[in-house]
Amino acid sequence: MNADPPAGGPACPLPLAGDDVVQLAHGGGGQLMHELLQNVFLPAFGDPLGAGGHDSAVFSAGAEQLAITTDGYVVQPLEFPGGDIGSLAVHGTVNDLLMAGARPRYLSASFILEAGLATLRRVVGSMRDAAAASGVAIVTGDTKVVEGGHGDGIYLATTGIGTLFPGTAIGPGAIRPGDRVLLSGDIARHGMAVMAAREGLAVTPAIESDSAPLNDPVLPLLEAGVTVHCLRDLTRGGLASALVELAAGAGVTIAIDETRVPVREDVRALCELLGLDPLHVANEGRFVAIVPAQEADRALALLRNSALAVDARDIGEVQPGPGGVRARTAVGTERPITMLTGEQLPRIC
Amino acid sequence: MNADPPAGGPACPLPLAGDDVVQLAHGGGGQLMHELLQNVFLPAFGDPLGAGGHDSAVFSAGAEQLAITTDGYVVQPLEFPGGDIGSLAVHGTVNDLLMAGARPRYLSASFILEAGLATLRRVVGSMRDAAAASGVAIVTGDTKVVEGGHGDGIYLATTGIGTLFPGTAIGPGAIRPGDRVLLSGDIARHGMAVMAAREGLAVTPAIESDSAPLNDPVLPLLEAGVTVHCLRDLTRGGLASALVELAAGAGVTIAIDETRVPVREDVRALCELLGLDPLHVANEGRFVAIVPAQEADRALALLRNSALAVDARDIGEVQPGPGGVRARTAVGTERPITMLTGEQLPRIC
Repeated sequence: MNADPPAGGPACPLPLAGDDVVQLAHGGGGQLMHELLQNVFLPAFGDPLGAGGHDSAVFSAGAEQLAITTDGYVVQPLEFPGGDIGSLAVHGTVNDLLMAGARPRYLSASFILEAGLATLRRVVGSMRDAAAASGVAIVTGDTKVVEGGHGDGIYLATTGIGTLFPGTAIGPGAIRPGDRVLLSGDIARHGMAVMAAREGLAVTPAIESDSAPLNDPVLPLLEAGVTVHCLRDLTRGGLASALVELAAGAGVTIAIDETRVPVREDVRALCELLGLDPLHVANEGRFVAIVPAQEADRALALLRNSALAVDARDIGEVQPGPGGVRARTAVGTERPITMLTGEQLPRIC
Repeated sequence: MNADPPAGGPACPLPLAGDDVVQLAHGGGGQLMHELLQNVFLPAFGDPLGAGGHDSAVFSAGAEQLAITTDGYVVQPLEFPGGDIGSLAVHGTVNDLLMAGARPRYLSASFILEAGLATLRRVVGSMRDAAAASGVAIVTGDTKVVEGGHGDGIYLATTGIGTLFPGTAIGPGAIRPGDRVLLSGDIARHGMAVMAAREGLAVTPAIESDSAPLNDPVLPLLEAGVTVHCLRDLTRGGLASALVELAAGAGVTIAIDETRVPVREDVRALCELLGLDPLHVANEGRFVAIVPAQEADRALALLRNSALAVDARDIGEVQPGPGGVRARTAVGTERPITMLTGEQLPRIC
């Protein structure tokens, strides 16, 4: 420990921000990862394109606006019910572009390999299928190989390029009090699918990841010209982290009704068994759309046309003033929703 | 072994292409890596933008042509004389764009971390400096953390976007018999710098990597409208692999005069000590330009204006018909230059 705890702070077993150790929690999408971003990456690289809290940056090329996003994938195990590291990488990157209001076009893929070729072939085949389903082309790539024991079979980094829909300004800065918060479907399946596969938990039938490309539910919203203030996929840190980030980024309060957040019974049971809060568990095919109240019904109707958002629903509203995220519980009380300091489920993406 | 050796083939200790094991050699830029590309990646992903043998793919955005390239970095040690994994990643990606005839603009960076924060801060600072020197902005990124022992401190994947110079058609397909082969400077420093640092070889003074962004020597060529048929940086596999790839891609023979390839005395001595051929050792700040004979003098003069190519020279010519690469040696004989099957120096980028 090379930093004293803050005066009056708790004697906490979690790492302090000043410690010179990267913890698993730094990759968890929670508070520590945000500190890494604020203290290490932003001071060095700045935010030249004003990406702000967004996963994609936007730049101009001729008359077009392009979005670019990048993600690394270290999921364990490499293959799990409902997907593998390859489809996950394609879906994750495609979805980040969609969340910026962009039509996904091209992907690059960088492999760091230690795995057997049979696994690689399956993963590559799965990427091919996922790219076809997502309407993107994998146009360039790179391969590095590390010695046995220096990787976990396959690490993968994908970068995506998409074309912004003209006239859209989607992002936390566009969120306004009175907006409705729409959730595309049931949550927490990806995290629990990976967790069950990794730990060998005998869940029958197996919980399948929700990993999927979100073109189908998202593009019709944009093509129809629905006013969308913000889109956010619910990956690391789950619905809770996504909403906390958005509330902070927009300087507003987000109030949700927890009873309206769908969680499948088998997923809820496994969460309870493991002492996890589904609101914090990762998804890879779920998102929230924040839209003006007068657009909510139209947006919901369009979303429900897609098999991936057939269960979309209005879960809450945006209220004025910075107040974080509050959830009305099943027993009628209200609880504050915070971002986890550390990591609930490591290596889920 | 799950594949019989080819009939009449040698009983070779190197892995056969049919083996279901990824070898270090699959990442070495040699024959095995090409087989991985041909047998696994190309059948799945195709070559939607016709990148062919090029490191960058090109796509249209409005009236502009953009180049995109991606690379993973697993160099060990993370820091070495003349650079670190951060500057190496920026230089490598910037140079791949330049080699496509594109002006580098934006980078994304995906980190897979296991290292201490102090190392990460140095690497990130080094990336910041390299990006500034290369005229690119790092616009988006991602961080994943793996458990201690599951990485090597930092793995890094960078993707670059650049704008093609209008009217350029730079690539192996543009190479013509009669073209001259220009080399930008002395070779083999990066590979030997990393090797010496990794193995703790006491070389005094230390050999510094040639890692550098190639904007300075390359952009003036393009800005001056010099006809350039092909550019190729000499990374994994060195000058030999680069020329073998180009000769094969263009269906020509490349004949070089080995005595005109500069190798610094300390680098040559270390290569000899270790039994390595400098032609196969990696560089990260060296390239060949293949230009029509009538443009060679003008190109050399422009190259020599840059500190990074002050020692540029004409090392040979392109001859008709597919015949690989041949080198005239110091004793006046000729030897064929082939691509290494495996890996000469693993983990040098």
